[in-house]
Amino acid sequence: MSTITENEDLRKERAKCTFNIEELTYLLDDGYENTRRRRDLENKVLSTKGLLDEIPEEYLSHKEKYENVIRKCVKLHRALLEYDDLRDKPIDEKIKAILRDTVSLAVTKDNSPMMLHSGMFLMAIEGQANEKQQEYWLKRGRNMEIIGTYAQTELGHGTFLRGLELRATYDEKTEEFILHSPTLTSYKWWPGGLAHTANYAIVMAQLYIKDKCYGMQPFMVQLRDEETHMPLPGIKVGEIGPKLGFNTVNNGFLGFENVRIPRDRMLMKNAQVLKDGTFIASPNSKLTYNTMVNVRVLIVNTVAKYLSSASTIAVRYAAVRRQSQMKPGEPEPQILDYVTQQHKLMIAIATSHAYHFTVRWLYDVSDTVKENITKGQLDTLPELHVLACALKVLSSSECTSLVEVCRRACGGHGYMLSSNLPQLYGVCTATMTYEGENTVLLLQVARSLVKAWDRAARGQPLSPSMSYIENKTLAAKWDASLDGIVRNFQIVSRSKLASSVASFQQYMKSGLSYEDAWNKASVQLIAAAEAHGRAIVLAIYKQQIEKQARNVSLPLRDVLHQLLELYMVYWTLEKVGDLLLYTQISERDVKALQRRYEDLLEILRPNAVGLVDAFDIRDEVLCSTLGSYDGRVYERLMEEAMKSPLNKEPVLCSTLGSYDGRVYERLMEEAMKSPLNKEPVNDTFHKYLKPFMRGKL
Amino acid sequence: MSTITENEDLRKERAKCTFNIEELTYLLDDGYENTRRRRDLENKVLSTKGLLDEIPEEYLSHKEKYENVIRKCVKLHRALLEYDDLRDKPIDEKIKAILRDTVSLAVTKDNSPMMLHSGMFLMAIEGQANEKQQEYWLKRGRNMEIIGTYAQTELGHGTFLRGLELRATYDEKTEEFILHSPTLTSYKWWPGGLAHTANYAIVMAQLYIKDKCYGMQPFMVQLRDEETHMPLPGIKVGEIGPKLGFNTVNNGFLGFENVRIPRDRMLMKNAQVLKDGTFIASPNSKLTYNTMVNVRVLIVNTVAKYLSSASTIAVRYAAVRRQSQMKPGEPEPQILDYVTQQHKLMIAIATSHAYHFTVRWLYDVSDTVKENITKGQLDTLPELHVLACALKVLSSSECTSLVEVCRRACGGHGYMLSSNLPQLYGVCTATMTYEGENTVLLLQVARSLVKAWDRAARGQPLSPSMSYIENKTLAAKWDASLDGIVRNFQIVSRSKLASSVASFQQYMKSGLSYEDAWNKASVQLIAAAEAHGRAIVLAIYKQQIEKQARNVSLPLRDVLHQLLELYMVYWTLEKVGDLLLYTQISERDVKALQRRYEDLLEILRPNAVGLVDAFDIRDEVLCSTLGSYDGRVYERLMEEAMKSPLNKEPVLCSTLGSYDGRVYERLMEEAMKSPLNKEPVNDTFHKYLKPFMRGKL
Repeated sequence: MSTITENEDLRKERAKCTFNIEELTYLLDDGYENTRRRRDLENKVLSTKGLLDEIPEEYLSHKEKYENVIRKCVKLHRALLEYDDLRDKPIDEKIKAILRDTVSLAVTKDNSPMMLHSGMFLMAIEGQANEKQQEYWLKRGRNMEIIGTYAQTELGHGTFLRGLELRATYDEKTEEFILHSPTLTSYKWWPGGLAHTANYAIVMAQLYIKDKCYGMQPFMVQLRDEETHMPLPGIKVGEIGPKLGFNTVNNGFLGFENVRIPRDRMLMKNAQVLKDGTFIASPNSKLTYNTMVNVRVLIVNTVAKYLSSASTIAVRYAAVRRQSQMKPGEPEPQILDYVTQQHKLMIAIATSHAYHFTVRWLYDVSDTVKENITKGQLDTLPELHVLACALKVLSSSECTSLVEVCRRACGGHGYMLSSNLPQLYGVCTATMTYEGENTVLLLQVARSLVKAWDRAARGQPLSPSMSYIENKTLAAKWDASLDGIVRNFQIVSRSKLASSVASFQQYMKSGLSYEDAWNKASVQLIAAAEAHGRAIVLAIYKQQIEKQARNVSLPLRDVLHQLLELYMVYWTLEKVGDLLLYTQISERDVKALQRRYEDLLEILRPNAVGLVDAFDIRDEVLCSTLGSYDGRVYERLMEEAMKSPLNKEPVLCSTLGSYDGRVYERLMEEAMKSPLNKEPVNDTFHKYLKPFMRGKL
Repeated sequence: MSTITENEDLRKERAKCTFNIEELTYLLDDGYENTRRRRDLENKVLSTKGLLDEIPEEYLSHKEKYENVIRKCVKLHRALLEYDDLRDKPIDEKIKAILRDTVSLAVTKDNSPMMLHSGMFLMAIEGQANEKQQEYWLKRGRNMEIIGTYAQTELGHGTFLRGLELRATYDEKTEEFILHSPTLTSYKWWPGGLAHTANYAIVMAQLYIKDKCYGMQPFMVQLRDEETHMPLPGIKVGEIGPKLGFNTVNNGFLGFENVRIPRDRMLMKNAQVLKDGTFIASPNSKLTYNTMVNVRVLIVNTVAKYLSSASTIAVRYAAVRRQSQMKPGEPEPQILDYVTQQHKLMIAIATSHAYHFTVRWLYDVSDTVKENITKGQLDTLPELHVLACALKVLSSSECTSLVEVCRRACGGHGYMLSSNLPQLYGVCTATMTYEGENTVLLLQVARSLVKAWDRAARGQPLSPSMSYIENKTLAAKWDASLDGIVRNFQIVSRSKLASSVASFQQYMKSGLSYEDAWNKASVQLIAAAEAHGRAIVLAIYKQQIEKQARNVSLPLRDVLHQLLELYMVYWTLEKVGDLLLYTQISERDVKALQRRYEDLLEILRPNAVGLVDAFDIRDEVLCSTLGSYDGRVYERLMEEAMKSPLNKEPVLCSTLGSYDGRVYERLMEEAMKSPLNKEPVNDTFHKYLKPFMRGKL
């Protein structure tokens, strides 16, 4: 039907690639063994029958989506049980190996109602239950005899934990806790799987003993009868309704009417309540936020993955799509040849790399902190907390905005759900508000920075990631080397901190209270916190590339450096206002950087498709008509593709950017899946339109 | 159930308001008469039974959504026929009166499958059919005897019209055109209502006569049998599938297999084909892009309206929502008291004002151009074209990004569809890619600017909106007055143009062809085009406020000026890099502006709720649990509310921000509408979960 041979364009793109794509894939996977394991698992699991949707879920009703995802989750669990050899390893051991795993995204692309079971529920038992409790509940949970979730956020209360209202009042006569929701705003709201999936939950509630409040404590609560699944007496549970994304996650609400649970259902690894109502406090409250830190570190990895998917789709599509006329008489060029298009897409690839490598460094920091904790040293935990906050904020906002740039770079077709770009935006943008809303986190980072500023003024030492704040030798002149750029961004960060502290102090001098002065200067303070995060990302991305580059071939080293330089120059141009204010950069330097940026786009252009191919994201995961891949082309990936089942695309969820470039065929195939296309005339014609057009309605 | 009295907070907010909200509403409506007419129409139409959804459409399947919207469209049409006294006025006459009309958005919030009938289809007949054709088709179309759409974009071709492939070949023997789609990429793709609603379409196709191509021409084509609605022979028609928004618009595809239509089905107001195949060209090709210009002007109005809805929701919610602790011992403050929150929301209100007033100026320009055209003077059309492009780009990207800021400012609850913020984002962001993708339009603006630059160099006069480019007296020193800011933004625009032209010329000198040099400098060129748009928006917003302020009361004048100043200072701080590069602004000036910005937020804070109330958007339109309104509070709007039917919220589509502040009650009410909440145990428990948890699956 089609006379267009886009295949040819992609094949040409791949032939132009200057580096070995497989080598980059192994590097991104932290070694060949992980790539092999990941691909093997993907091949096995994704060839399970009935695991992938035949009709895209976008056509289903809200209720049908839930029913479909439950069916698939159960099947997926069984397949993983069979094929995943890391499945029973403790999470700490396997986490680095599985950072790039995406197999579950192919099955539940809008996420799963059981994601909180394997994530938060089991993790919370490990972190907060005592040995006896762990023995009982971990076994039941790991065997999937029960399905759990984690319920903390309430309808009227989010980030501010002290504001949570749900009460657990201890009754020493019966040795029970009475869970009660005093108001509508105290209803739990949001937990995944809570609505109709979970029969147990770990519920956070304000502990009251003899009218005294002992703060938030975790309770294991049975929600539903194990046999009938009916909610237990006094339990008000249901779903909160449709959302921008996560529509298959079954987010729920939960209220209690004087529900009694035995004393041993409070998780007592840290704090304890004795039979007589004596409260024994946790030895260290800081330990509880270690979980939160881990979750934020994981978010940095998640958003980098989302962005790698979005850029894969947009770059392949830009290689296939032809539009307008650049030169008279010539055919319509690939839109990837427009420098304005490269300007949108190359930075998306570079940013995905930046956070990919940064998160690996952050894991190393986190490992060291955990080691210290086991030795009883807790002093490095606050720094990790600040780093995780700052990097969660920067990565989530930057990757989300670039996912959207990728979508819009595909024009109208990117607006179609079959491109999967709108759905990627939906799940990616959620990271900006969940697990600590970004502005709230930046204010926390700002508090630490201001404390550090005070310590530096008193000559006290700072933590390593903030040490540049006291480095007096920084005031060097502009230097466009990568080291120079990092140094100048540190100057910017320090200067913005100095300037916002000065404003804050001025507001205090003018008569405002500490809190009001802080509030009034807070726009500047969060800008300083962001600048601190920026200085860190630039420094760490550079450091990691330099480390990695030692062990890779020269052509790959070149392209890794080009992406790094692109990222550096891009941010220098983005933040030129700050640099002009606080460093010695000149107009001439800015023009030279602009020129360098344009040269870098040209240098990177031939490797664009190769770079996204190296993300090695399967069609079932990309789930995009714009970005899928079939292995008929480009020899270096071809070899790898030959190990895959012949039918690599058992079901395409999307239509815009296949590896083979059959963009338009896929768009049409997808369109034909619409239930509306099953009948030439929809019933509404007879019921409404015809009488309407005859003037009878 | 709830002990929270948010009502009280909103009432207090309204009591603080320093200006007359009604006065601002009338001003926004361009006069009391329009407000009265608009409210009257809203009251009548929205009290029509069955017009509003009882179950939010987010719960329906894709197919059910279509069936539901058709039912409602027919009812809405009848209601408008009965109540809209401007209904039969020519569009040019009524357009200014109805710019703020939103009644159809209350009924079809994701838009209507008939929107292209009343918009493009009838407009194209008026603009492109000859008198005889108009007489026949306009009557049938206006009476809704037929339903039409406008089909131009193809699967493989968008903005670049010459690339369209569909052919209409004239057969002089039978005096017919033969419509044929030679490839899959030549299928029409996207037209609203095309899939299952329309039975006629105006189809753009390349006209061929005796093997010679005469370019794109419009044809009136019957798609479906008027009696059975079955597609006619050779017509391949269907729907393209779900999208990020516009899911009730029934976008379709359309292919032709040698479909013959009579010669008089080509619309011949401009170009003509005689019986013998003689082609008579259009007297002026520029006239055809007048329609496109009008559509772009309308987009500026549309996005300003979307942003006014989003800011209404987010501001009311911020007045109701309480979180964290600002000062020890004090209760959780309204989140609107956080300066970081004001930083997000005040600029949203100001930006909505900026484009609201700018579009009115643009209409005046457009009227003058139309007048000139009727006098045969076409020389002002190109300037209007550039203005419409630049303002479409700036307004769509700025308002879209602020709609999203408003959503995220509502935290997790903004992610729920019942807030209506995700849907507002969906329809708003579409404006960035439709009717000319933004980057493509900026490149067109850049071309005009470079031409103007050359003309200025040769001492030739420039069009009024570009005249600042040749103004040699501009190189004044920094001046923080509003006039000074406008002047300095003009300097920035001129300097960025100069700098990008210099780069472009340098690339040519280095040996690149004109086209390659243009492409390589294009990132700078679009930045210059954007700077030009920015200078215009700042100048026009200021000019319009100064004009309007003469006729309003002092308190309103103050707040209008504060918003204007906020907008000016905000953009000065945003673009401080450009200003530091090209003007004499100093670090000291920047700090003073930052301080002024913080003061302005404080000054505007007490009027935040009043300002969004003045947008006067009804609950049925806001359709938001975060933003709806019931008239029990704030006396100045209370009076107006008493004219409304008692049941102002027959159906709430959303849950987050009601006028009465019953945020949490509404969230719960909405959640209870979920089909999943109709049964305590979903069937998947028995089918999957139970056997799964028993290890039997």
